[in-house]
Parts: sequence; structure tokens; C-alpha cells
Amino acid sequence: SRELFVLTYGALVAQLCKDYEKDEDVNTFLDRMGYGIGVRLIDDFLARSAVKKCRSYSETADMIAQVAFKMYLGVTPSVSCSNTAGNEFSLILDKNPLVDFVEELPAERASLCYCNLLCGVIRGALEMVHLAAEVTFLQDRLKGDAVTEIGITFLRKAEDRKHKRN
Amino acid sequence: SRELFVLTYGALVAQLCKDYEKDEDVNTFLDRMGYGIGVRLIDDFLARSAVKKCRSYSETADMIAQVAFKMYLGVTPSVSCSNTAGNEFSLILDKNPLVDFVEELPAERASLCYCNLLCGVIRGALEMVHLAAEVTFLQDRLKGDAVTEIGITFLRKAEDRKHKRN
Repeated sequence: SRELFVLTYGALVAQLCKDYEKDEDVNTFLDRMGYGIGVRLIDDFLARSAVKKCRSYSETADMIAQVAFKMYLGVTPSVSCSNTAGNEFSLILDKNPLVDFVEELPAERASLCYCNLLCGVIRGALEMVHLAAEVTFLQDRLKGDAVTEIGITFLRKAEDRKHKRN
Repeated sequence: SRELFVLTYGALVAQLCKDYEKDEDVNTFLDRMGYGIGVRLIDDFLARSAVKKCRSYSETADMIAQVAFKMYLGVTPSVSCSNTAGNEFSLILDKNPLVDFVEELPAERASLCYCNLLCGVIRGALEMVHLAAEVTFLQDRLKGDAVTEIGITFLRKAEDRKHKRN
């Protein structure tokens, strides 16, 4: 049913572009909407994937790429850790099924993060397993980049910080 | 990926409910949006299903129910012809996956056809294979009906009428 989803998503973005003049507002709306979806989708994911608790950020990033993306979008991004602290990851998509029917962004929508819903979904789902994260598009083929890259930065837990202070 | 689609669809309907006060306007918008999706989705359907040309309205209705619904929504409605002329059909859905996460319509949205996008999709796709049709919800479990029923009325072709006059 992916094509129906992809076309419906396109209709949603088009509607938001009618509603909001600024790309930033559309991006924010998509991210918030995605967050609400992620918060609900996590139950479905945990039930259907039957995965075990991840023991590291690295395992979590792999799980998102190899299990969640595969399950919901039918693609598997490659994952790389992008800092020595081990809490920043890049998901690289050679192919992004959500833009299958999109040729290119119109000139007046150059700052639109078309797929920003995905960032919100990941953020919302992670929060439900008690992982705070920032999730943003770092590169986007729709904007002329060579690949599409989603950056996930896991934020240190409040308890960790507390523990360190003690 | 159906859950992601279903939740995204819900977010779309919620956004339209914010944008349009009247349920009728939301219904019309969903239908039109669906039409645009159906017009594009038909290529994907024909390519993936590899079905042959239908020789009757009855075959077409069965194709929509047994192949298209199965492919895009994972369910198979039952089909019945509802008039002697043989151009009116009912698709009966015991289970409608698009409302999986919807408890009930809010009281102030009693006239909302939540899934009206589907009617537009069917109408748009049929038009691309040169079949004009009216597609509407006749019953809806979200509104307390026992089943969800989509009515498809195939409209007599202009050429048929012309031929008859001659």
C-alpha cells in the first residue's frame, strides 16, 4: 500500500503549503505531526518487530534503520556514527520512497523539508522508549544533495547528568 | 507500512478539520484530493496487478474489491449489485483499516465522511480507464452503522447515449 501512502503524504504536504506561507512553519508542522504519529506508532512497532531492548545508541540507530525503516518504508538506510562521543548518527538513504512522485521542489519552496514528518516520527517513537533525541534532515536529494541524510543526536539523559554531578 | 499510512491519513483529516468549519467542505476536499491520487495511482495499479481489461461493470467492481482494496488496504470488501440495470454496486467492508486508530467521530463532526478520500481515489482511477462513476459512502461504522458501505454507480457512457439516439 506504499504508493497510496506516498501520494496521500504528498497531498498532505501540498495542503500545508497552502495553509502556511513560510517553509519553516510547514517544516515545524510536519515535525509536530510526525511526533504525534511516532508516539502512537511505537506500540505497533514493538508488537510487530518483537525486538529486544537496545543496549547502546548504536544498536538503537541500527534498529531504526534496519527494522523500522524496512517495516514502514521498505528501505534500509545505511548508518554511520558521526562523532567520537557516540551519540550522533547519520541515516543515509540512497532512495527515499516518500518522494517517489515528487520531481523537484518548486523554486518558492526551497527551504521545505518535504519529508520532515519522518524526523518527528523518529523523535516521537524514541521518546516513548525514554530516549530524547534531535532528529533533522542534514542532506536531501530533493534539494540537490547527492544523498538524503537524516541526523539523529541522542541527548544525554537527565539521570546520567544527575549521576555525574553526584 | 499500513499503520504509518493510517496515522498519517488521520493527521491529514485532522488538519482539514482545522481548516474547514463545515463537514461538507472537508468531505469535498477529501474527495477531490482522492481524485487526484486515483488519477496517478491507476498506473501503479495496472502495472502491479497485470489485470486484463474488464468486460462488464460487474467485473470492474470485483476488480476494485478483490485486487485494488487488497493491494492498497489489505482488505477485501464483499460486492453486491444493487439494481436491475446492473450499474450500481455496493462494496461492503466489515473492517476498514483506515479507521484503525479512530474511536469515534466527535459530536461536532457528525457529518464528516472520514474516509471520503477513498471515494475520490476510486472515482479518479475509474475515470482514467474511461469509466465515469459516482462514488459515495452509503453506510459508515464510524457513524454507528453496522457495516461500512461504499456505493459505486457507473454512469452510462456518452458514446452509449449517442449510439442509442442514432
